[in-house]
This record gives sequence, structure tokens and C-alpha cells, in this order.
Amino acid sequence: MTDFDSLSINTIRGLCMDAVQKAKSGHPGTPMGIAPVAYTLWQQYLRFDPTDPIWPNRDRFVLSEGHASALLWSLLYLTGVRAVDPDYEVLGPAVTLEDLRTFRQLGSHCPGHPEYHLTSGVEATTGPLGQGVSMSVGMAISGQWLAARYNRNDATLFDFDVYALAGDGCMMEGISSEAASIAGHQQLSNLCWIYDSNRVTIEGHTDITFTEDVAARFLAYGWNVTTVADANNLDAIRRAIQSFKAETARPTLIVVHSHIGYGSPLEDSPKAHGAPLGAEAVKATKRMFGLPDDKDFYVPDGVRDWFEGGIGARGQATRAAWEATFKEYANAYPDLADEVERMQRRELPAGWDAVLPDFPADPKGLATRDSSSQVLNQLAEAVPWLLGGSADLAPSTKTLLRFEGAGDFQPDERGGRNLHFGVREHASAAIANGMALTKLRPYWSGFLIFSDYARGAIRLSALMEVPVVHIFTHDSIGVGEDGPTHQPVEQLASLRAMPGLFVFRPADANEVVETWRVVGALRHEPAALVLSRQSLPTLDRSVLHGAEGVERGAYVLADPPSGGTPDVLLLATGSEVALALSARDELAADGIGARVVSMPCWELFDRQPREYRDEVLPPAVTARVGIEQASTLGWDRYVGPAGAVIGMDTFGASAPLKQLLTKFGFTPERVTEVARALVAEQPRRAGTPQPTAPPPAAGPATAPPPTGKDPQ
Amino acid sequence: MTDFDSLSINTIRGLCMDAVQKAKSGHPGTPMGIAPVAYTLWQQYLRFDPTDPIWPNRDRFVLSEGHASALLWSLLYLTGVRAVDPDYEVLGPAVTLEDLRTFRQLGSHCPGHPEYHLTSGVEATTGPLGQGVSMSVGMAISGQWLAARYNRNDATLFDFDVYALAGDGCMMEGISSEAASIAGHQQLSNLCWIYDSNRVTIEGHTDITFTEDVAARFLAYGWNVTTVADANNLDAIRRAIQSFKAETARPTLIVVHSHIGYGSPLEDSPKAHGAPLGAEAVKATKRMFGLPDDKDFYVPDGVRDWFEGGIGARGQATRAAWEATFKEYANAYPDLADEVERMQRRELPAGWDAVLPDFPADPKGLATRDSSSQVLNQLAEAVPWLLGGSADLAPSTKTLLRFEGAGDFQPDERGGRNLHFGVREHASAAIANGMALTKLRPYWSGFLIFSDYARGAIRLSALMEVPVVHIFTHDSIGVGEDGPTHQPVEQLASLRAMPGLFVFRPADANEVVETWRVVGALRHEPAALVLSRQSLPTLDRSVLHGAEGVERGAYVLADPPSGGTPDVLLLATGSEVALALSARDELAADGIGARVVSMPCWELFDRQPREYRDEVLPPAVTARVGIEQASTLGWDRYVGPAGAVIGMDTFGASAPLKQLLTKFGFTPERVTEVARALVAEQPRRAGTPQPTAPPPAAGPATAPPPTGKDPQ
Repeated sequence: MTDFDSLSINTIRGLCMDAVQKAKSGHPGTPMGIAPVAYTLWQQYLRFDPTDPIWPNRDRFVLSEGHASALLWSLLYLTGVRAVDPDYEVLGPAVTLEDLRTFRQLGSHCPGHPEYHLTSGVEATTGPLGQGVSMSVGMAISGQWLAARYNRNDATLFDFDVYALAGDGCMMEGISSEAASIAGHQQLSNLCWIYDSNRVTIEGHTDITFTEDVAARFLAYGWNVTTVADANNLDAIRRAIQSFKAETARPTLIVVHSHIGYGSPLEDSPKAHGAPLGAEAVKATKRMFGLPDDKDFYVPDGVRDWFEGGIGARGQATRAAWEATFKEYANAYPDLADEVERMQRRELPAGWDAVLPDFPADPKGLATRDSSSQVLNQLAEAVPWLLGGSADLAPSTKTLLRFEGAGDFQPDERGGRNLHFGVREHASAAIANGMALTKLRPYWSGFLIFSDYARGAIRLSALMEVPVVHIFTHDSIGVGEDGPTHQPVEQLASLRAMPGLFVFRPADANEVVETWRVVGALRHEPAALVLSRQSLPTLDRSVLHGAEGVERGAYVLADPPSGGTPDVLLLATGSEVALALSARDELAADGIGARVVSMPCWELFDRQPREYRDEVLPPAVTARVGIEQASTLGWDRYVGPAGAVIGMDTFGASAPLKQLLTKFGFTPERVTEVARALVAEQPRRAGTPQPTAPPPAAGPATAPPPTGKDPQ
Repeated sequence: MTDFDSLSINTIRGLCMDAVQKAKSGHPGTPMGIAPVAYTLWQQYLRFDPTDPIWPNRDRFVLSEGHASALLWSLLYLTGVRAVDPDYEVLGPAVTLEDLRTFRQLGSHCPGHPEYHLTSGVEATTGPLGQGVSMSVGMAISGQWLAARYNRNDATLFDFDVYALAGDGCMMEGISSEAASIAGHQQLSNLCWIYDSNRVTIEGHTDITFTEDVAARFLAYGWNVTTVADANNLDAIRRAIQSFKAETARPTLIVVHSHIGYGSPLEDSPKAHGAPLGAEAVKATKRMFGLPDDKDFYVPDGVRDWFEGGIGARGQATRAAWEATFKEYANAYPDLADEVERMQRRELPAGWDAVLPDFPADPKGLATRDSSSQVLNQLAEAVPWLLGGSADLAPSTKTLLRFEGAGDFQPDERGGRNLHFGVREHASAAIANGMALTKLRPYWSGFLIFSDYARGAIRLSALMEVPVVHIFTHDSIGVGEDGPTHQPVEQLASLRAMPGLFVFRPADANEVVETWRVVGALRHEPAALVLSRQSLPTLDRSVLHGAEGVERGAYVLADPPSGGTPDVLLLATGSEVALALSARDELAADGIGARVVSMPCWELFDRQPREYRDEVLPPAVTARVGIEQASTLGWDRYVGPAGAVIGMDTFGASAPLKQLLTKFGFTPERVTEVARALVAEQPRRAGTPQPTAPPPAAGPATAPPPTGKDPQ
């Protein structure tokens, strides 16, 4: 090591120890063990300009072991990374010494785990293990795709590399196995995972549960694998990174054997993982590293200049060259340059939504997965960087892009727009997150039931505020014969509970169009599209209100045919809206006036002013029936205590849909029966919870055990 | 092949084709390809008595590729497996020819995917890929543990093997990677996965996304791997199974190269996967297999007798020998035999709950994770087959069993009670399911936020109706400094939306005790325990109502100190109950009478008679404040339109808890402010949705972007 190499590394260690010690909380051990690797990568290899941390062709560094956040905060501080404001203007430092001193305190730019959107230089929110490495696969895919679309013989706009630093925990999580398998198949030679193998987790040494041969596993995935036997050996680290940079057909795993809490009295102990070392141990460790033990947050003279001369100088020069290239590129290829610039601002091409179709009324109609397929294809033709794939369900979810030139994204076809994620839902969503972090507009699709498998990554879309479109079809007992393992019940409520996620369940083809119009314009919010397997009538808007009401989340679709104040409100989403319309007609024949409200997106409706909400759901009309083939949780907000919900509070069953509709009470007879009862009981006493509609007259929603039911 | 071997295999193929064809829906291709393997295993190896399908020492067969259910239904029919009634009496056939003919229709015992609890002989509900193989790991762990505890030199009660049949999809899912890694570490030589490698999935050939070397991957996990190059080669199949049976230190993976839709015109095509072959193709295929093409559901004479003479005779003899052994065992070891028998009926030892402690009032109190730890340890001492582990968080979730002899479950210590699942939440929950399916009482633990990772398996606990205890700690922004990646917000609502799952969030140590009393007695329901990281006061029950109200889900904890009808109801769970009590005292000083209702388990409360619910939440009192550090979704059911909810509809933040309580409005000041406003507004108009409480006066719940917020 040169003096400044070791001085810089030990400075990082000191800052990490101090930040955790001062916060009285955090994870000191991992940064101390892996600091030499992170230092070497940043100082000597990472193409990153601290003065412009969102330069599009920067190398990405994802701290997948997000609990080691102090390492990242130290690097952002020492390298002088700048903050960027909402208008993409570059401001002062992203992380100040005061931020480090207030690590994990309210308002600090140094929170407990890296949070994208809160601190410049953070490429992805991490902490939930396995997510960071999986998102890095999405970033690497983006890099390959961007290169294929935008690079020209005379101009290389995109050739960035993606690094992810992962711990033992990341390697154990299933999501990273899925992502690694995809990365190997896709031969992502621009991807490098650094596995910080300190063999210590919270419960103890990895010997107690994690004895597989990780290197052999990654070779089986088709990766290049290399090993650094000692995390403090900078030459070995350089050789390993060179091995990655020389590799042209495989992603690279660098296994680094490190020591948690290196240099401290707690070295190699689980106690170094998740708690401050203690004041005395910090002092002793500083002495061991040649740092003054009476100073905290100590940065020796010259260290920041050293970084400025390393990563700083290299990054600025590289970016300046890129800017010059881009200027020429913009002259030669103005349309492509415009795409690149719009993409960076998360804007779509001008007039992107002019292509959206209008579906004529059709009593037979089509499944919303089918209408969405048409809309998606038209949009994707208009928006070249809208791309995605499915978790092995594209023929069912209908998300394949079929237009001329769409093609598959594969090792030999990097410009393809269709990704095959395989039966790997969690990685699919995480990869989509990674693609969104590199400013593409990604989507992925699966059955709604399998949103459960992907929840960890969906949550990160919402927390990071990136506009991923999660497309979920087969959205109810409409699945039919596949039965309760495949029929979602609780997934709608679960997704609605997630802050920052827009959940759409459109009722017909034109609501699908309006949904995509809203979703397309989102810049900082993910959306979940919940679509039917079965055909739904395309509603006749000449006699009903228009589907543009989708943008307000819920809207009056139809008032009583006879006019006047409605006696009852029928509230529904998706496939149940047509059912509500049928019930409205039957009720009219009985002289009961029913209003039908379509509620495709609760989150948008809840954001409307009270006046609009009261207009759609007049407070005076307390007879209200909510209808949705899903858990009733949450419906009380709209139906109130005098209302009722026809929903699913049990699992479904394996049978053709028609039988299930009767069994579970989704028939016009049942809706009108419930509505009539509510109207007859008016006025009811207020404040009495009426959790759900009574079960259908035909029998309880939970069927009695069939003969031979096995009580195992 | 002998005549009857090929005749039986082709009969199975014919039944599967016909069942799918008649249902006009289903998956014919997989059963046709893998039938020879399933046949050989069942007929020649599986120790399974069709006349007593719940015999405790039977070998387990898990159809992890659950979409191939027709294969299982055919086998259950042909081998004459009996049904078992709720009193464990053996009845007539589990699957009749009529059931096969009504495959996938309402009421058939042959639903679309195997459903435990619906059809005898189904060892686990499967269909969501990866779950079956992962549960099989739990079953194999159970086998090892049962052997260690109950076998004696003179009596082997448990030595069953566990087989799982998996497809390409199962191999791609992350959960199976997690489970395979654990199985390898645990050296589960009683476990055999048969990988039906037909290299065709829904989107096409696996070449498009799944090109890893699966055999090499499993060698890396520490498995014995063997290959059958042709699924129709019965000798090769036998040799592979012999390799498994000869293996003493590793689980075995048998890679079987098969052909989807074997023998049909659609062989090797994705079209053979998920739809009927078509009438003409079925006829042609029958001719190819030498079956009459003018008969459906054809079972040649002698085939059922052939099974009766194979698996039937072997199974009955093996079970009879076991019964004789058990009789002697019961004489020699009556206490142990009693345990085995109780366990099979899902009963606990007599007086099991006598050990439950009573916690004295203590204003400082302790975290509910800590009180639960004490209770769990006492219960586990009283219930020898209560065991479990954590997804690498035991020191934090406090679920380690610490009493003398509890020990770790490891390859060299099979009687240990503590499992180390590693950072693998999804497999943890699935393994717990597998253990429950073998009649142990398992639990596993993690942070509540990571319940997201395990949802697919938690859902199966509920769908299968097995009493797994899912223990989740760090249940709110109480997590503090780790920040929003680790602070659950939407997880409570998500779990509550799941049918059949009891979700408990106890308020203090004595509610924890009563929660465990309810949970311990469950025989067919899983539970989620949601526990705090931070200390909560142990409430003084001498001046408050007793914690036994937990069994009714919600109960009046305290009425206004001055008596009389309350002016306002304060409803809360977990850590917010003490907050509600403080607010009650402050309101009393203002002359406002507040009732505090603790609501630890909504599902139980919703099951109470209306009288009880109205007694706890008097309809006349419409001023109601719900208080919970979680998504407000679902609270409207209890607070009604004139109420308000103080909850979390944004993500949290990284800071010490005290700062977060102020930021997000969980202070006595804020609760009293909201309550006072509601009381002042009385009476409000009914029917007006009031989704959530207005944000705290101190500022909006969603903080404005901090300076330097990065708009990437």
C-alpha cells in the first residue's frame, strides 16, 4: 500500500466506527472488513464523477449489504459527491461532516440504510438482503440495451459497468439466486458482484447453516469467479477487478475473504455486526490503525485531495469526454439524443399518448389482459425505452411486444424489447427496479397471486419512487379451474396497503386505456395493473359516463335510469363493474334507483378533494354495496357502517368460473338481494360495523367439508 | 418393462389425458412425460399404505409441480387410497372414477392443483412453484428429529423418506434454492428431489432463460446428484432411486430428462403444458400407447390388482409390522408413545398451558419479543414437539430455546430444538409448513418487514390449515434507526387480509401470555405473532380489565375514570395501547370520558356475536380514534365514518424512535387533540368517509423533500 492508500482506508474505518458510536446504533463491522475493496474500486476503477453524480454513463455501485451504509456515507463525504435538486441542478455536498455526525438521526442525509432519492450518490435503496444485487442485474441489462440502441460506430454513449457489494446474507436469499441465474444466462459481462465473505451473520458463524460452495454455485450459473484471499491485499483486489474487466462473455463474482470488525477487539465476532463497538474498543482500534484515539470523525490532511486526484480527476475527465462525444452525437443523431435526454428527465416522447386507442362498445368484449396487451404494444412502439417481460407467463399475461423489431433481449440480441425472466417473480420485479433506476421505463408481468413472491421488490419500487409498471393478470376467482392456489383473494388489499403504489383494476377496455394514460405519465410512482383473465364487456359509453374518470380514481359510471337521487350506491372495480350495471337495471325494474360507481384506483380517489368524493359518494346515501372478488378489507371506508360488501373472505375453489360466481355470490340476483335489503332497512343506525354482507342464500361462502375431507 | 409396468404407465397417461380433455382445462403434458418415474417410485419403493394414508411412518411424496395434479389423482385412484374423516376414521376411496371424470369441477376431489385437507393422499398443497420442494425439506427435517427423539435401539418408529417431484419452474424459483442450500447443509439423506427436466416452460424452451447447470449447482449445495437420461428407462430410474437409498450423508437430486407430452403429437412443445391436447390428438396418442382410442378413462383389467399387489401389499405389510412395533413400544415407553399419538391428533400434552406465567405490573415493562421469548421457552419445555428457528435473527427476535437440552438441530445433533434457517425467510416458512404437515408444532421468526419475503409460504399455511406460528418482531417504526427499509407499514394489513390467518399484536406481556394460550390450542389455523422491539409497560391489571379478553380478539381495557358512557373510544393494538391509556388520563382531566379498547386480534373479534361486538364498541359512541403504527387500511370497519385513524400511510424514516413518534404523531398530545376534535364535532353526519386523521399539527406525515433531495 502507498501511504495514502492505507491512510484513506483507515480514515474510512475511523469514520464508520465513529458514526455508529455516535449514533449509538448501526453496523460497524462490515465496513471495517471490506473498506479496502470499496476504496480500491472507487479510487482506481469506478468511472464516477462526484461533481455530477447522475451522469448517465457512470459506473454504478450498489451497496447490496445496505447495513454497511456508513461505508457509503464515508465515501460520499470523502469524494465530495454533490447533491442534485429536483430540477436536476447540481448543488453543494450530498453528505457533510455534520450528516455523518448525525448518522441515523432525523433529517440527516446519512440514514440507517442507503435511500435512493434521499442522498445523491445512492444508486439504489438497499438493506432488505438480496435486493441490491438483483437490481444490479437490471442495471446491467439496461447498460447492454442502451449500448445496443444508442451507440454508433463513431460514438459510444453507454458502456458503463455495474458493481454490487454483497454479504453472506445476500448470497443466502433466494432472490439473488434467481437474479444470478438470469445474469449468467444473459452473459452480462458488464456486471460484477463482490461477495464480502466474512462468514459471520447475526446468529453466528455461517458454519451453522451456510456451508454450500458459493463459487461452485456461481460457476454453475455460468459466471466468471475469482477469489481474493485477503481483503487487505490491494494487489489481489486489483487483479480480481482486472479479471472482471477482461471478461467479455460472463458476469463476474469476486469472492473476497474478509474479517468483520477487522482490527477491532471484536474482529470475526457476530458482536461486531449490528451494534457500536464501544468507546474503548473504538479507541484501541484507532490506535491499531495509526489514527489519533482522541479525535472523532478524523480526516487526515490530504485524504480528500487524494480522492479528488483519483476518482475525482478520472471521473471529471471521463465525463467531460463523454459530454463532448454527446455534443457531436446530438448533431449527428438529434432524434436519438433527444430520446437520451428525455429519458434522463423521465419524460416520454411528445404526444406519446396520441397512439392510445378507443375501444367501441361490445357486449362480448375482451379480457382486460387483452386490451392492455393492445395498449401496451401501441405505447411501446411510441416509447422506445418502454420494455419489459414476464416471469414465464407472457402467453397468459399477454405482455409480449409483437410489433416489427421488438424482438427478444438475449446475449446475441441486445436491442430486444422482450425479456424472458423465467419462473422467478422476485428477481423479475427487482430487475425492473434496476432498469427504472437507469431511467428506462420497465414493466414485468405475472399472475396476481404471484405478486406475493415479488412483494419485497415491489415495496422497493414504492420506497424508491421509481415508475415501474407491475402487470398482474388472472386477478380473481376468474382464474377458475386452477383453484385456490392460483386465485388471488388478499393480494388487492395487500397492494393497496403499500404506501406510494397506485393500484389499478380497470373495468373494461377503455378504462384500461385511461389507466395506461395515467400510468404512462407517472415519473416517480410505481403502479400495479390488475387485469382479468376472462372477457369483460366493453361498456357503451354513449349511455354511460366516460372512462376518463379513471384519472380521479373513481367516478360515477351510471345513475338510476329514472334519474333523481339514488337509493343505493353500487361500488365496484374490474370485472364486478358489469355485474353492478346488471344489478342496477334489475333494481330499476323494482323501482329502486341505483348509482354505479367504478373505482379503479382507490389511491387516486382518496387524493381527490372532499367535494369530488362527496359528489361521487353522496354522504346522504348510506345504502351502499361494495362488490369485488377480493378480500373485503378496506371497503368499509367507502360503504360505511350502513353498507355491505360482497367480497371474498375465504379462499376460492377449483371449478369453472360460472360455478364459482354462484358459489361465492357474484350474481345479479345476489347483488340486488343485498341492495334491496339495505334500502328496505333505511335509515339504519349509524356507527354499527357491518363488516361484510351476509353469505349468499345458496349457502355459506366457506363450503362445509366435502365427504372424505381429510383432517390431517 | 414387464407388461404390467408399461400397461400401468400408459393407463396413467390415458387417465391424465382424458381428465384434462373432459375438463377442457388442465395440464396433460407433464404427467405424460414423467409417468414412468412416478409409477416406478410408487409401485416399487414408496412405503405407503393406501388403506391408511395417514400412517405416521409412511414415506412422503410431494408433487411440487402441482399443475401435474392429474398424475396424482390417477395414482390415488389406481392404488385405491382411502379417505379419512375428521375423526381420523378411514372411509371409502379418496378418489373415485367419478372424481376423475369431474376433474376441476366444483365438489370433485380432483381439483386443479393438489389440495391438502381436501383429498387424502395429498401430502401438501402445491401449485405455486418451489413450495412443494421446500416443504419437503421440512418433512425430512421432521423425519430426522422424530427418529432422534422416539426411536430406540429396540424400536424404529420413524425412518421415512421424503420424495418431491419438481419441474423446471420449481428449480428456477428462489425459494427452492434457499431450501436446497439448507437441505445440503443439514445432510438430509432421507430427502430425494426428482427433477423432471423437460426443458419446456410456458414461454418456450428453457434455452431462452434457464441455461445454468442445475446438477453442478446442487453439487455445490452438497447434494448427491444422479441423472436418468431417459424418463422411460425404468432400470435407470431404479438405479437412481437405489443411489438415493444408499446415500447416508447427503440429500439426493435425481435429474430425469423427460419429454413433455410424451407420445402425443405435441411432444416437446409448450402447447402440451397447460391446455387439453384436443380430441384427435388424444385418440392418436392412445393408439400409440396401445390403448383403445374409443374409450375414455379406460383402466385395463388387472391394473388395479397389479397396484394392489405392489404398493398395496408392501404398504400394508410394512404398516402392520410398524403397528406391532408400536404396540410393544407403547408398553416399554408409554410416555413417548403418548406423545406420538397426541401429536398425530394435533393435541398438546395435558395441562400444557399450566406453565404459562403471569407478569406483574411494571411501568417500565419489557418488549413483547422478550415476554414472548419467556413464554415460548416455557411452552416448549412442556411441549416436546414444539420447535423452530429463525431466519438468522434469533438474537433479535428472541426465539432461541435456551432450556437444558434444547440444543441446535444439526447433522450431528438430530434431537436439537433450535433450527438455524439462515437469511432465507421464504424457505423458513415453507420448511415450517413441512414440519407442521408431519404433525410437529413448528414456529419460525423474522422481522415483520420480512414477512413480505415469506408470503407465498405463509399463504399456504392458511390454505392448508396447518398450525404454524409465524413470529414477527420489530413490528413498526419502533424499529427506529434502521429506517424505512426495515420499518413495516403495510405488513399488518397485508397479513390481516389473508383468509384463515390469525394475526395477533399483543399490547403487553400478559396479552402475550394470553395470545400464546389461544395460539397453542389451535389445531388447524396458522397464526402470526406481531411483537415489539421496544419495551412496553406491563399494564396494571388490578385497575384495568384482564388480558384474558385476548381470546375474544378485542376487549375493553379501561373505561372513563369517572364512569358513565364514554364520550370517545380509543382503539389500539400493541405498542399503541399504552399510548391510548395515557391519552385517556389526559382527556379525563379535561372532563372527556374515554374508553380504551385493546384489539390484539381482529379476526377473533370479527367472529364474536354482534352483542359482544356492540358491547365493546357501543354503536351510539361514534367518536372513535384508531391508533396503530401501521397502514390505516381496514380500520374504518371499527372507527366508522365519524371516527379517525392515527396511522401510517407513508413509509417511516431513519431516526431514534422518540423522534419518529413526534414526527408521525404517536404522542398523547396528538391523540387527545384528535379525540377532542371528534367529541367537539359530535354529532357528525353519518356516511361521510373520513379516511384518516388529519396530519399532526407539527407538519405533514410525509416530510417535504430535504435539501439536496435527489430527484433521480
